[in-house]
Amino acid sequence: MPVTNPASLLNPDAFLSPLAIEEAVQRALDEDLGRAGDITSIATIPEAAPARAIMVARQAGVIAGLPLAVATFRKLSPEIRIEAHCRDGAIVAAGVKVLTISGPARAVLAGERTALNFVGRLSGIATLTSDYVRHAAGTRLRICCTRKTTPGLRALEKYAVRCGGGFNHRFGLDDAILIKDNHIAVAGGIRPVLQRARAHIGHLVKVEIEVDDLTQLREVLDTGLADVVLLDNMDIATLTEAVKLADGRVVLEASGGVTQNSIAKIAATGVDYASSGALTHSAPNFDVALDIEA
Amino acid sequence: MPVTNPASLLNPDAFLSPLAIEEAVQRALDEDLGRAGDITSIATIPEAAPARAIMVARQAGVIAGLPLAVATFRKLSPEIRIEAHCRDGAIVAAGVKVLTISGPARAVLAGERTALNFVGRLSGIATLTSDYVRHAAGTRLRICCTRKTTPGLRALEKYAVRCGGGFNHRFGLDDAILIKDNHIAVAGGIRPVLQRARAHIGHLVKVEIEVDDLTQLREVLDTGLADVVLLDNMDIATLTEAVKLADGRVVLEASGGVTQNSIAKIAATGVDYASSGALTHSAPNFDVALDIEA
Amino acid sequence: MPVTNPASLLNPDAFLSPLAIEEAVQRALDEDLGRAGDITSIATIPEAAPARAIMVARQAGVIAGLPLAVATFRKLSPEIRIEAHCRDGAIVAAGVKVLTISGPARAVLAGERTALNFVGRLSGIATLTSDYVRHAAGTRLRICCTRKTTPGLRALEKYAVRCGGGFNHRFGLDDAILIKDNHIAVAGGIRPVLQRARAHIGHLVKVEIEVDDLTQLREVLDTGLADVVLLDNMDIATLTEAVKLADGRVVLEASGGVTQNSIAKIAATGVDYASSGALTHSAPNFDVALDIEA
Amino acid sequence: MPVTNPASLLNPDAFLSPLAIEEAVQRALDEDLGRAGDITSIATIPEAAPARAIMVARQAGVIAGLPLAVATFRKLSPEIRIEAHCRDGAIVAAGVKVLTISGPARAVLAGERTALNFVGRLSGIATLTSDYVRHAAGTRLRICCTRKTTPGLRALEKYAVRCGGGFNHRFGLDDAILIKDNHIAVAGGIRPVLQRARAHIGHLVKVEIEVDDLTQLREVLDTGLADVVLLDNMDIATLTEAVKLADGRVVLEASGGVTQNSIAKIAATGVDYASSGALTHSAPNFDVALDIEA
Amino acid sequence: MPVTNPASLLNPDAFLSPLAIEEAVQRALDEDLGRAGDITSIATIPEAAPARAIMVARQAGVIAGLPLAVATFRKLSPEIRIEAHCRDGAIVAAGVKVLTISGPARAVLAGERTALNFVGRLSGIATLTSDYVRHAAGTRLRICCTRKTTPGLRALEKYAVRCGGGFNHRFGLDDAILIKDNHIAVAGGIRPVLQRARAHIGHLVKVEIEVDDLTQLREVLDTGLADVVLLDNMDIATLTEAVKLADGRVVLEASGGVTQNSIAKIAATGVDYASSGALTHSAPNFDVALDIEA
Amino acid sequence: MPVTNPASLLNPDAFLSPLAIEEAVQRALDEDLGRAGDITSIATIPEAAPARAIMVARQAGVIAGLPLAVATFRKLSPEIRIEAHCRDGAIVAAGVKVLTISGPARAVLAGERTALNFVGRLSGIATLTSDYVRHAAGTRLRICCTRKTTPGLRALEKYAVRCGGGFNHRFGLDDAILIKDNHIAVAGGIRPVLQRARAHIGHLVKVEIEVDDLTQLREVLDTGLADVVLLDNMDIATLTEAVKLADGRVVLEASGGVTQNSIAKIAATGVDYASSGALTHSAPNFDVALDIEA
Repeated sequence: MPVTNPASLLNPDAFLSPLAIEEAVQRALDEDLGRAGDITSIATIPEAAPARAIMVARQAGVIAGLPLAVATFRKLSPEIRIEAHCRDGAIVAAGVKVLTISGPARAVLAGERTALNFVGRLSGIATLTSDYVRHAAGTRLRICCTRKTTPGLRALEKYAVRCGGGFNHRFGLDDAILIKDNHIAVAGGIRPVLQRARAHIGHLVKVEIEVDDLTQLREVLDTGLADVVLLDNMDIATLTEAVKLADGRVVLEASGGVTQNSIAKIAATGVDYASSGALTHSAPNFDVALDIEA
Repeated sequence: MPVTNPASLLNPDAFLSPLAIEEAVQRALDEDLGRAGDITSIATIPEAAPARAIMVARQAGVIAGLPLAVATFRKLSPEIRIEAHCRDGAIVAAGVKVLTISGPARAVLAGERTALNFVGRLSGIATLTSDYVRHAAGTRLRICCTRKTTPGLRALEKYAVRCGGGFNHRFGLDDAILIKDNHIAVAGGIRPVLQRARAHIGHLVKVEIEVDDLTQLREVLDTGLADVVLLDNMDIATLTEAVKLADGRVVLEASGGVTQNSIAKIAATGVDYASSGALTHSAPNFDVALDIEA
Repeated sequence: MPVTNPASLLNPDAFLSPLAIEEAVQRALDEDLGRAGDITSIATIPEAAPARAIMVARQAGVIAGLPLAVATFRKLSPEIRIEAHCRDGAIVAAGVKVLTISGPARAVLAGERTALNFVGRLSGIATLTSDYVRHAAGTRLRICCTRKTTPGLRALEKYAVRCGGGFNHRFGLDDAILIKDNHIAVAGGIRPVLQRARAHIGHLVKVEIEVDDLTQLREVLDTGLADVVLLDNMDIATLTEAVKLADGRVVLEASGGVTQNSIAKIAATGVDYASSGALTHSAPNFDVALDIEA
Repeated sequence: MPVTNPASLLNPDAFLSPLAIEEAVQRALDEDLGRAGDITSIATIPEAAPARAIMVARQAGVIAGLPLAVATFRKLSPEIRIEAHCRDGAIVAAGVKVLTISGPARAVLAGERTALNFVGRLSGIATLTSDYVRHAAGTRLRICCTRKTTPGLRALEKYAVRCGGGFNHRFGLDDAILIKDNHIAVAGGIRPVLQRARAHIGHLVKVEIEVDDLTQLREVLDTGLADVVLLDNMDIATLTEAVKLADGRVVLEASGGVTQNSIAKIAATGVDYASSGALTHSAPNFDVALDIEA
Repeated sequence: MPVTNPASLLNPDAFLSPLAIEEAVQRALDEDLGRAGDITSIATIPEAAPARAIMVARQAGVIAGLPLAVATFRKLSPEIRIEAHCRDGAIVAAGVKVLTISGPARAVLAGERTALNFVGRLSGIATLTSDYVRHAAGTRLRICCTRKTTPGLRALEKYAVRCGGGFNHRFGLDDAILIKDNHIAVAGGIRPVLQRARAHIGHLVKVEIEVDDLTQLREVLDTGLADVVLLDNMDIATLTEAVKLADGRVVLEASGGVTQNSIAKIAATGVDYASSGALTHSAPNFDVALDIEA
Repeated sequence: MPVTNPASLLNPDAFLSPLAIEEAVQRALDEDLGRAGDITSIATIPEAAPARAIMVARQAGVIAGLPLAVATFRKLSPEIRIEAHCRDGAIVAAGVKVLTISGPARAVLAGERTALNFVGRLSGIATLTSDYVRHAAGTRLRICCTRKTTPGLRALEKYAVRCGGGFNHRFGLDDAILIKDNHIAVAGGIRPVLQRARAHIGHLVKVEIEVDDLTQLREVLDTGLADVVLLDNMDIATLTEAVKLADGRVVLEASGGVTQNSIAKIAATGVDYASSGALTHSAPNFDVALDIEA
């Protein structure tokens, strides 16, 4: 399908403000083009020379970032024509073509690196997430992200997690309550901190609280004031116990030590969510390239 | 040393516009605080409660990003006081304290994740780079980065490479010429493309050209028009041959397959630079935490 | 108390990103000063002339916006000194002094209107909210706002609602689910729409659904999938019935026809929240003035 | 008429930079969509579902803000089609359709509140202004606004005043001289202050001076140096006297106590302008809604 | 005098929004520092090396732009100390010292060119203006600028004109009416166009109209609807005649052919203003340098 | 040719980020339109009135800036149609038509001054540069610019130099090393400073060093560490000697005293480049006008 609107390649089930595409592309291109632009192409490629480029996945995985790639090329020239062979969230094998870009060679070459950087990073996150998700297949466990994201790319990285089949934790400090040990300590205990939280916030904000052991979990459950409990760095046996204790009264999130190896075991405990910072802060780049016929 | 100016913690030998600190911190905090700010701390921590936090490296490596951490906390409250125990470029062991932050508990908690995200990502790059560099120790080989950076973080990531002992390749499409296969093809060959480049650009711009084999390298050397030659994906034997051929007439950069395993062998060939995209696009996060006494 | 940090006058129990102050003041001053600045004061007031101004409430009510007033004056001159006689959330009588501003007359006069516009608008909202809240005193009813805010002032206006004792509904489309009639219609009914929502979103997002009658309410309750139900435009009798039906299983929000006259009756029904767009979109300006001794 | 250019719905006789539309819409949408966008619609509405919405005035009045509504929807999706049934400045009865919006249901729902907030606020101002203007019908009195506007919305609100038939006072501190009591006091009197003003400013700047009584008015008239005199808080008898005194030598603006009740009497005095801050700072929201068929 | 507030060096009689300083400096430094900053100084100057620099006028003239120079250096390092030997509007001889800057050598060198570019351009305009003004000395003729300014520097360049003793014409299309031949033609003549203008605009906007000959001038005078008449490209005899005709009923501005040679003659005609685009669009750079002792 | 994409009129051999056009036009229009827009045209020209305008060169020279002119008009109205009779870099005689603009009269008049300011300034630079270049015709001397540019217009002015046949020196402090006397002094001499530079920077950065006399030049040549030597303020005889000394081992740039009169003599010495700040900081405006048939 020929693409005129970059947003048409967004994963339809993932959350992202449509304004984020333009803003991210503007910043990335500005950073790469600097003051003088692509001086190599201007100096060596005639203005009228055409090119055709195919964006190819060089590994298997889940694609994310195509709307940003499309917006990158289109910003460089209105003469660029793009055909999309899939959209964000597509599961691809190595060698699969994802986009065909045609137009002025200068624009194709100027946009190459920026487009690939977007798709490489976001597909890397989507692919790692999908791997985590696969380890939980057939269970009720949901994999979710954290706020451990690259500064300035939060929204895009959380979008990529969702493209890979994961779920989103808080997008920022402002959209949910997450009470940690320091909040508890300052407020004088679990019950007082939860009461304070409930007294201040409205009915559209979830309250999550982090606990380190089952004693704390019991305290939380007794208050009836938490929506979600984060079980921090508990071993599998403790997690299993926690699920029994909670008995469906709160949502349970396991955190710490969530890796491809541990997910199946965590899933077996019956917790609802397992969260991992590595999904966003340590996902290796997805190998994607542009094959250009200038 | 107590820190009032975030830039005083910059690595004095690494390149970064001082304006980049403020801009990156503003964007990252804006992204994390959203509209309502840190609702958890506002709801649960009394405004006057103090806190003291220590940023601790949880792994060995090279630190980068402290100016951004400092600027983050200071932007949240002018009452924050920070003491730095090292600065960017410091080589640390696991458990080493890098910063002590004192001030209003709300501000300390609100800045925690953003500060850690900066230091985690940039120290991750610096640490991976320093590992590459160590493999080239005692040789003349210099490790350098590429433009395969996280969109929007180019300048900071290149700065982190330098903190780790690496060197910087182009910062963007505008500050050096890098001629690739497509430029050569469109321009009609190696000599014509180099002549076009030289005809257009001034005397403050270096010209690098990518070659795939020794035949191309010979062609380039014959022209005498290139400053640097990028030897793309050549095996060790070919690299060795290339060094002989060039005989000091151009700077040689090896690219492709540059990993911790291959660096010593590449260094032995006598090429001047080895470049790796993985330094920036796939560096795992550096493990750093904030121990807070609220 | 002399004020150096504008944020120190924020209401400590209200939610606002501290970055919002600077951004709003920059925009407002830019809008008022234009290219040439305060040409009247430059033309008629000697640069060295001092002034002292007292910001006085000319009506009774709740003050909000002082941090913006302080930031306005300080941005105009570092020589301005400000003493605050109260902070945001203060309940004042007519004639009460809120700020004393001393410094260059040119800066005092240049900042006057912008500072008053902030305090007038936000105190207007806080005062109207506190009036609504007073009508619910002694009951468990909480007054809350909507997204019917002045474009570009969302965060500040929601902050003012909180200063007046109200609670905040969603800050935007992205921080909670609110399902309305159209969502229900397209998704094929109440159960399917709630199932879709639950299937997509994570555990940190509340789900609210709007219903028009008790039949719909029953359907929602049967699913057990909603956190909050918005009871749209129901009369007092129906609200009372709804409370009985829900029996504490969901939070109930009454919407439509919420005015100073109806609040006590709504409170008596036992619903948890009453929301009103008028708090933000139709609050009359609070009468506040600057008495200047130049 | 189908609308492709939002500016085509601007009132052709009202003043507004065409750049203001895009800037205001970008900011308002950014504020509402946040990082994750309209999560309710993404979670519950299939991407391909269409919708048709009709914007309907629910009260009689004067419409303003349609270009902003159009730009809002179009920014959310290029597939949105809009038909306009009137343009800014139109006088409508309750129940009148103003816009028909067709396109993807997700985009229609995501833009609903932002579009209504613009039209509600600006039509509120236009409608209140038109009411003031009607009270002066058949006289030479012109109704005008002040700088008592919502911070960040100055240009739009002054535009709305003009849509309602009013006239614009200064847009900022930089486009006309308005000398108040403090300027007079510091400069040493009416004559010196007017002389200072005239000595500094060029020939494209009007000079207005505020007076409290007829003695001051006489002094101003004696200098021959003012273009406009603002008669502050004078009763009807004094205004009448002022008009006689001035005898056409200056333009006279009555200020203070200008309400729907007093306008006819003020008009009868023969002053040229009556200015009111309430037009912009206290106009109630105009009741407008979107009837959606999803 | 040691300078901490850049705005303290503004010419106290010239018009400029104080916000313009920071914005212009941010943009100029960003443009010069790019991504990597001052790589020469970072590579060659030890971080701790101090420097002392003296900004010296290398020609006689009028200084403008010092606040921008100060803000430039201070933005680069809080350790910079600046002493000002004069302020904007100062008349200097060649060789006069204007600023002494002390601090880290890296910051001094990084700011040098940006600071000089500001002072060179603005002092160039101020100096050329003062030369024009001197030719009108002893007459009532005022020299004024136009909108023929460097894109993006309008406010600063108009400020510099005022520093040189000139007066400001319109700052933009929005702060005064200037009717030209095309407006007259479309509106159907001089009287209709002036009537249209008066019917639309408020009492704080001046109306100027351009005429080519005395017949047109008479028409304008007959209407009594213009505040200012622009006499376009008239010779001295015609200007003299125009002054007689107008007889003080309107302000007269001569435009076209205003040069150092013609000013005295124009002044002798009795017109009020002579405007020149060359003041801003063709002023040669003022020769100013930084003598650095590193 | 009818123009839809402003970038299509860029000089194909000159360097400029395509993002620079939109950004510069947005800022310039914003500066000129202010809050209220073109009040003269709104007040006097019916919305539907068409106009046709021809941009005409009123002097001979080299045109630059047309993409900015096109973008200016198109931003004001999508109904504007533009035909280009030449593109940037065209050599024109006085009286030559460069653009024909057709569309709503209001938009044509509103864009007139901004479009002319861009073309006037940039064509002024291109024309002056081409004059310098002509004096070097038939020699190998290249004319180049400096960083002495108008703050905020660096990229556009360097682009204009290239349109005039000149070459670009550094675009900023970050894209090449230029060692001056202070760097030498602090680093302890020519060899140490060059060694420091080489030790820090990568292989894509050129190193230039400024020398005052032949002794210094010899020192530089002995190190073999410089790519380019800037010969500062040397007379013709010394330049000739320098060329002999260098004997092709470095690129030589003459600086200081480069004027139309001296270029031929400088060229005869055999240096490679002559740089002049006057090209950008003191180029007189190019005379260009818009002939409008409204």
